[in-house]
Amino acid sequence: MRVENQHHRSIALAEDGWSVEIIDQTLLPHRFELRRLTTPEDAAEAISSMRVRGAPLIGATAVYGLALALRDDPGDGNLDAQADRLLATRPTAVNLRWALERARTRLQPLPAGQRAADAYALAAEICEEDVEINRRIGEHGLELFRAAWAARGERGSLNVLTHCNAGWLATVDWGTALAPIYMAHDAGIPVHVWVDETRPRNQGAALTAWELAAHGVPHDVIVDNAGGHLMQHGQVDLCITGTDRTTRSGDVCNKIGTYLKALAARDNGVPFYVGLPSPTIDWDLTDGIAGIPIEERDPEEVIRVSGVNRAGEWDSVVVTPEGISARNFAFDVTPARLVTALITERGVCEASEAGLLGLFPERAAA
Amino acid sequence: MRVENQHHRSIALAEDGWSVEIIDQTLLPHRFELRRLTTPEDAAEAISSMRVRGAPLIGATAVYGLALALRDDPGDGNLDAQADRLLATRPTAVNLRWALERARTRLQPLPAGQRAADAYALAAEICEEDVEINRRIGEHGLELFRAAWAARGERGSLNVLTHCNAGWLATVDWGTALAPIYMAHDAGIPVHVWVDETRPRNQGAALTAWELAAHGVPHDVIVDNAGGHLMQHGQVDLCITGTDRTTRSGDVCNKIGTYLKALAARDNGVPFYVGLPSPTIDWDLTDGIAGIPIEERDPEEVIRVSGVNRAGEWDSVVVTPEGISARNFAFDVTPARLVTALITERGVCEASEAGLLGLFPERAAA
Repeated sequence: MRVENQHHRSIALAEDGWSVEIIDQTLLPHRFELRRLTTPEDAAEAISSMRVRGAPLIGATAVYGLALALRDDPGDGNLDAQADRLLATRPTAVNLRWALERARTRLQPLPAGQRAADAYALAAEICEEDVEINRRIGEHGLELFRAAWAARGERGSLNVLTHCNAGWLATVDWGTALAPIYMAHDAGIPVHVWVDETRPRNQGAALTAWELAAHGVPHDVIVDNAGGHLMQHGQVDLCITGTDRTTRSGDVCNKIGTYLKALAARDNGVPFYVGLPSPTIDWDLTDGIAGIPIEERDPEEVIRVSGVNRAGEWDSVVVTPEGISARNFAFDVTPARLVTALITERGVCEASEAGLLGLFPERAAA
Repeated sequence: MRVENQHHRSIALAEDGWSVEIIDQTLLPHRFELRRLTTPEDAAEAISSMRVRGAPLIGATAVYGLALALRDDPGDGNLDAQADRLLATRPTAVNLRWALERARTRLQPLPAGQRAADAYALAAEICEEDVEINRRIGEHGLELFRAAWAARGERGSLNVLTHCNAGWLATVDWGTALAPIYMAHDAGIPVHVWVDETRPRNQGAALTAWELAAHGVPHDVIVDNAGGHLMQHGQVDLCITGTDRTTRSGDVCNKIGTYLKALAARDNGVPFYVGLPSPTIDWDLTDGIAGIPIEERDPEEVIRVSGVNRAGEWDSVVVTPEGISARNFAFDVTPARLVTALITERGVCEASEAGLLGLFPERAAA
């Protein structure tokens, strides 16, 4: 995607050919700043502090982190230790596990001297795959958007509600939920996006709004509380979100609050779609509510809100009384029954095991 | 209620016998400051800027505003003009209309010279009534809490989720949703409250948390997105909220986001109760979604978050990119079908016309 007339991806090899450049997403939308990762510790810190976030992007970052580690010490012990450390940064998204397992499987049989180069090659490969996956999700999603636009008689705007950020910043490029939005906009469908603020970290207000503004897609930021009201009043034609982990039965784990929007969509007959790259599918799980570990993060993220103060400086304010207790659950699970359809790189399917296996028959025996 | 060992109500006549003292709720929880209203303009400003908020409290404030106006000019023209101006401050809560109509009906027949004194008397009367109504809501609600506590075998804590602030700050004293919580706590039931932050104005994080802390009720602040996840995992025994207007059919208009919590409660078999003082019932309306005007407030409330900065000063930060568009809907409507029961001063009833008329038979012909 383009930022200030330069093409950027959310992660890329730096010009030196070995260090890794990310966009520090904790500074957006107020500052667009690249940050260089030179050690596996840098990569782990970038993931856990959410300088990079979004299931696909943290998978890619983890493999680059492994590559940085293997430059120093390509031995078996280090490979295992660093992979374990990177895996522990965030528990909910399954892409981290998927990417690191893929890396271990590929690197372990190799002679130590070959591992670092191969890890870099794999990281680049995962990035390219992700871009292609998201492009295809965008194309399949575009067909659903076209149908929704036709269904409303091509009048007014096509009003889309999204939660959190599942745009190009959450992936390597394009995004999952936002890819169809970009493509629909580019295809001349007058998309208007309701952007859920997405407390506590405001990825909607900060990142999705910034991405949409940069691409010229009309949008309004709303608080997370507002979507149900808008759906009751016919102001949402469809919802679309990303996911951090989806079970083989179609239960969708995503940013906390997604479930509430899916309930409102069902209650008001609004389609609820999920952009789902296949590395985000956890083929080992069937019950998302029982089986997916939900990360609990620092309560400080609830208590303290960051942004730009009246002096134009980056600052934060505490919104609660002094000494108050808070809890900070990062994700929730939307049961498959509330999801109208999953949009994968192989096409659109019902949120069910049968639906997913129809597109991924090689998983039938798993 | 007690603040720093002094008894306070949210509104009271000042010591001078004519001006009106409120707690400036826009400064809480960081500063407890009384503010004196001496003109009807002061009263209108206090309501529209939400220095006072909560359906019962704005009704009481409006009548005091009228009393202040009639001190200056008790003529028919001024009575009508000031009542109209006060009514226009906030469109959604019906208590404003109820209180001002009651005042007009009582004051219009009086000789001009008697009106101001009578307006003061009426304002005091409305305040006393409100305290008594809420005390009774607390007692009726307490029975439901006792039953819920028995139902969970009196083990652990009784986990209650509430949205926004329907405590003593939203009323003259006690509160509607919080009255049963205070009484259950005082009765020895180990209540623990999940306090929804309640964006955009954070009445939960700021006011409810402050009230509960002052009363010693254990609680945790959570973002508005989190309640569904907690209910899915059996961590909420019951929900209780207040309301700004409830139709004769039991549709509950309350702070934006209430509807989403009611949907989650229904989806997880969690009872959803509403504390409902009878002046908050709009006997003229049956369809809440079609009939209740939803106030749209300044988008600045969404874009800018207020609190205390690292220097300990009151400040605010902007959370969105520069120049972004936002929309700010203040309330939503929870359809009666999602409400387990209404808790009124006359007892508990089904959220339906039949249920309400069972308690308020005098309204059957309305």
